[in-house]
Amino acid sequence: MFNEKELEQIRAARDKWEETTLQKALAKNPERAPKFITTSSEEIERLYTPLELAEMEYARDLNDAGEFPYTRGVHATMYRGKVWTMRMFAGFGTAEETNARFKYLLEHGETGLSTAFDMPTLYGYDTDAPQAVGEFGKCGVAISSLADMEILFEGIPVDQVTTSMTINSPAAMIWAMYIAAAEKRGIPRAKLGGTLQNDILKEYIAQKEFIFPPEPSMRLVTDTVEFGTRELPKWNTISISGYHIREAGSTAAQELAFTLSDGFEYVRWAMERGLDVDAFAPRLSFFFNAHNDFFEEIAKYRAARRIWARAMKETFGAKNPRSWLMRFHTQTAGVSLTAQQPMNNVARVALQALAGVLGGTQSLHTNSLDEAWALPSEHAAMIALRTQQIIANETGVTNVADPLGGSYFLEALTNKLEAEAYDYFRKIENLGGMLPAIERGFQQREIAEAASRYQREIDSQERIIVGVNEYVAEEQLKVPLLRVDEAGARHHIARLNRVRAERDNARVEKTLNALRAAARKANENLMPYLLDAVNAYATLQEMMDTLRQEWGEYQEPAIV
Amino acid sequence: MFNEKELEQIRAARDKWEETTLQKALAKNPERAPKFITTSSEEIERLYTPLELAEMEYARDLNDAGEFPYTRGVHATMYRGKVWTMRMFAGFGTAEETNARFKYLLEHGETGLSTAFDMPTLYGYDTDAPQAVGEFGKCGVAISSLADMEILFEGIPVDQVTTSMTINSPAAMIWAMYIAAAEKRGIPRAKLGGTLQNDILKEYIAQKEFIFPPEPSMRLVTDTVEFGTRELPKWNTISISGYHIREAGSTAAQELAFTLSDGFEYVRWAMERGLDVDAFAPRLSFFFNAHNDFFEEIAKYRAARRIWARAMKETFGAKNPRSWLMRFHTQTAGVSLTAQQPMNNVARVALQALAGVLGGTQSLHTNSLDEAWALPSEHAAMIALRTQQIIANETGVTNVADPLGGSYFLEALTNKLEAEAYDYFRKIENLGGMLPAIERGFQQREIAEAASRYQREIDSQERIIVGVNEYVAEEQLKVPLLRVDEAGARHHIARLNRVRAERDNARVEKTLNALRAAARKANENLMPYLLDAVNAYATLQEMMDTLRQEWGEYQEPAIV
Repeated sequence: MFNEKELEQIRAARDKWEETTLQKALAKNPERAPKFITTSSEEIERLYTPLELAEMEYARDLNDAGEFPYTRGVHATMYRGKVWTMRMFAGFGTAEETNARFKYLLEHGETGLSTAFDMPTLYGYDTDAPQAVGEFGKCGVAISSLADMEILFEGIPVDQVTTSMTINSPAAMIWAMYIAAAEKRGIPRAKLGGTLQNDILKEYIAQKEFIFPPEPSMRLVTDTVEFGTRELPKWNTISISGYHIREAGSTAAQELAFTLSDGFEYVRWAMERGLDVDAFAPRLSFFFNAHNDFFEEIAKYRAARRIWARAMKETFGAKNPRSWLMRFHTQTAGVSLTAQQPMNNVARVALQALAGVLGGTQSLHTNSLDEAWALPSEHAAMIALRTQQIIANETGVTNVADPLGGSYFLEALTNKLEAEAYDYFRKIENLGGMLPAIERGFQQREIAEAASRYQREIDSQERIIVGVNEYVAEEQLKVPLLRVDEAGARHHIARLNRVRAERDNARVEKTLNALRAAARKANENLMPYLLDAVNAYATLQEMMDTLRQEWGEYQEPAIV
Repeated sequence: MFNEKELEQIRAARDKWEETTLQKALAKNPERAPKFITTSSEEIERLYTPLELAEMEYARDLNDAGEFPYTRGVHATMYRGKVWTMRMFAGFGTAEETNARFKYLLEHGETGLSTAFDMPTLYGYDTDAPQAVGEFGKCGVAISSLADMEILFEGIPVDQVTTSMTINSPAAMIWAMYIAAAEKRGIPRAKLGGTLQNDILKEYIAQKEFIFPPEPSMRLVTDTVEFGTRELPKWNTISISGYHIREAGSTAAQELAFTLSDGFEYVRWAMERGLDVDAFAPRLSFFFNAHNDFFEEIAKYRAARRIWARAMKETFGAKNPRSWLMRFHTQTAGVSLTAQQPMNNVARVALQALAGVLGGTQSLHTNSLDEAWALPSEHAAMIALRTQQIIANETGVTNVADPLGGSYFLEALTNKLEAEAYDYFRKIENLGGMLPAIERGFQQREIAEAASRYQREIDSQERIIVGVNEYVAEEQLKVPLLRVDEAGARHHIARLNRVRAERDNARVEKTLNALRAAARKANENLMPYLLDAVNAYATLQEMMDTLRQEWGEYQEPAIV
């Protein structure tokens, strides 16, 4: 990229700088630490110049925004055309309460919805199951049947607003409820836009909310990909998620590598199912964390776009440029928020959100200042949403595509993260691929090691977290917390009992039996069977239990 | 800087991009506005590439950090050696109250002090003067005599902590009090480190807190430069301030140009006084605003360093590299904070502060969320300080010098702001120089025009300010405000009366007469006379009135 003759001069000047200017500076102010590391413990050099990018070619490695390999962004005009979707992850208590929160956020300028489900729902249990005791509505909304889903989106124009749903093992069932609820309102499924998280691989690797073993889980995911490709052209069938990998303590490079290799695995399964890569790949989307380290995060997003574009084109043979695009949602790092001095989290979130935007995100959730304490209160969620609106409207960063492109440091960091991702791809391949690697606990171990290194750095004060291991203040600041109303569970269970009493139980049994039979066949897509069961008001647990009986439950390998 | 052959390829690809990729993107999502502008209403292109930097040379225009022209930072190791000084502007009520706030901030990790004075002090009146009625302690601490100054810094190790003092017309008197108070504690003046704002030119241009006409004001400033050069080698004698120019509504380019041209004027006066440029220039420092537009602000700081370095070396013939360094303090933009939804200001301040840091600031004040309402409360000031600590410790941006160097967009913006500054320098020169330009109201008019354009953009919603002209919320959030204690004024005046009663009034009169006689001589440095008066416990107003009688008060020209 650079003029060879000038590079030589820069190199000579750099050598002189190392011997003179730098030595003088070090003599005056020794550096504060023997080495300087990112949030991921990557060592950073003290200065980056064209020398670090001598091997780069603009057209090959960066290129204009909207051009392969999309390092500088998936759209030519980026946020001048449309700013990212402001999508706040929300959900607690009953469907009614969460519906009210959705409307509150939309009224205040949110532009997309994102649904948090409670633990019983995430694990496929109805609220009155023994496994659900004490967990109703705590980390999200409880959805036990179509009746709840109808209330959850009541009065919300689901043909205009896109909805993201954070659910994995029961993703297909919840999606079927969403589709059925819309169709009951006369909105055809082809008009529904949104995203199903539906990324089971990262559950084995990081979040551990799996139910079935990997093989049938992958089959169910592939069913949704196939069904979406055929019937919901505006739906993102999987949100391939690095977020939870990162929250489990991974490095940025691990988040990047494991997420993309999860993505490759979904592509392989869908292609093996016989789908045309260019039919489904445009509807795969991604979900990344925005952690503390400002430039490392931005580099991660840019590397992800370049790797994905090249792999889709060169490895998987996609010909449709839309298949090459790594489009992603970002959430600021929940794990980075502190219970101590919670107002400090507003600043943390603003800085992390800016990294997501400078990295070219398509959609963004900003965490609330009280999330280390409880679910976001209305006021705290509003401040978090306002933070996005300030970035979009006041900072000027939406004026230009990839404002950081060309930065010696950022480009070098992007190259470094990319190289580390390829290293991980090779390691996973050497272990026999994705499922064998998971079953041997490879990714889990890598993440666990990174997490303990990070903790050691905090313990030794090599890494400072404000308010935690330095700048500790005596007072605990009071934040009004959201408390889930105990009466909600009774209200929810009453509705569930009404559903069970009023529905046609013979029809439910018939649809569940059909689901069971279909599950036994390897090549039968389960989505139509799930839609039938949902429309008969089968409960979430009834559908999940049917599959649990067929497929069993997964036991995690011991990680040594 | 770039490879010629590759530039040709990039140019050809760019033409094709304009015709195809861009057109497709525009057809799908027309841009949201006909043009995209910065906070300063500068138009921004949609994409920046090596093409925009084709004329740049690395060694000439950027160079490594710590090397001329210092575009990439004044130190080779930047924040790896030492992070910026966290210096919170603070002051209200009595000297006792502000002393307590100083100690509170130092206890919580502040690393430098910055003093706000009240209006009577800023205008050189004692608290019991008719001109002071109702203004005691409202926008800063009241200092009427050495007795107050002694209390203000009681128990603070002024030989170790540096102190900035925001005062202009009475800067020399307040500085004399600071020196005298330290010496009474046995701390020699040569050990005192800090900064006197002392920038009278920007008062005529923007803040309007002038007292004397420009010529005697410049003489007094030059006296302090001369005195500091001789006796306080660790003191920054002037803090050449763009902050107030920006707060008055200027653009970033105007802030840059008018501040640097003010700086050149101080250099000229000091050289005409017969001082060696390399004796005093290393102790000139700067003070810039960090406004909303993230990249425009960073570009401004980088352009300022390059312009100053070249001017000092090439125009003023400085040979000491320390004379070439544009070292600066930054304050986030008070004017950008909103009274509406004040919690949003935490995010604004975090983003603005990050711009200051990425621009390589040496010192930083972060505004408090309640500043649109009142003086910072203790809690609000703490959150603002924590914001700096988070940037310093958690974001990783301190790991590397000038992390944005090389960014096509930022470098192009830096070049553009630099060119606009040189345009202004030529215009000021054509008006006959700095004082004639001020007397003709040139800068004042330019700023007023920019301020009304900005307001028009808000009125027409071309520019969105969150919570002000969009995303307006009904509720007013409650913030506990700092109220200045009414009893403070009585306490302060009682001390003032005690000073007047107990001092040797004949000695006071003698020192004031000597000051008057010295003021009549063109080449007599007033600092020793002020120190004598201060040590005799002459009040601020007594010294200021003496000079008011000699020099008269300035009347601003009508600006048409």
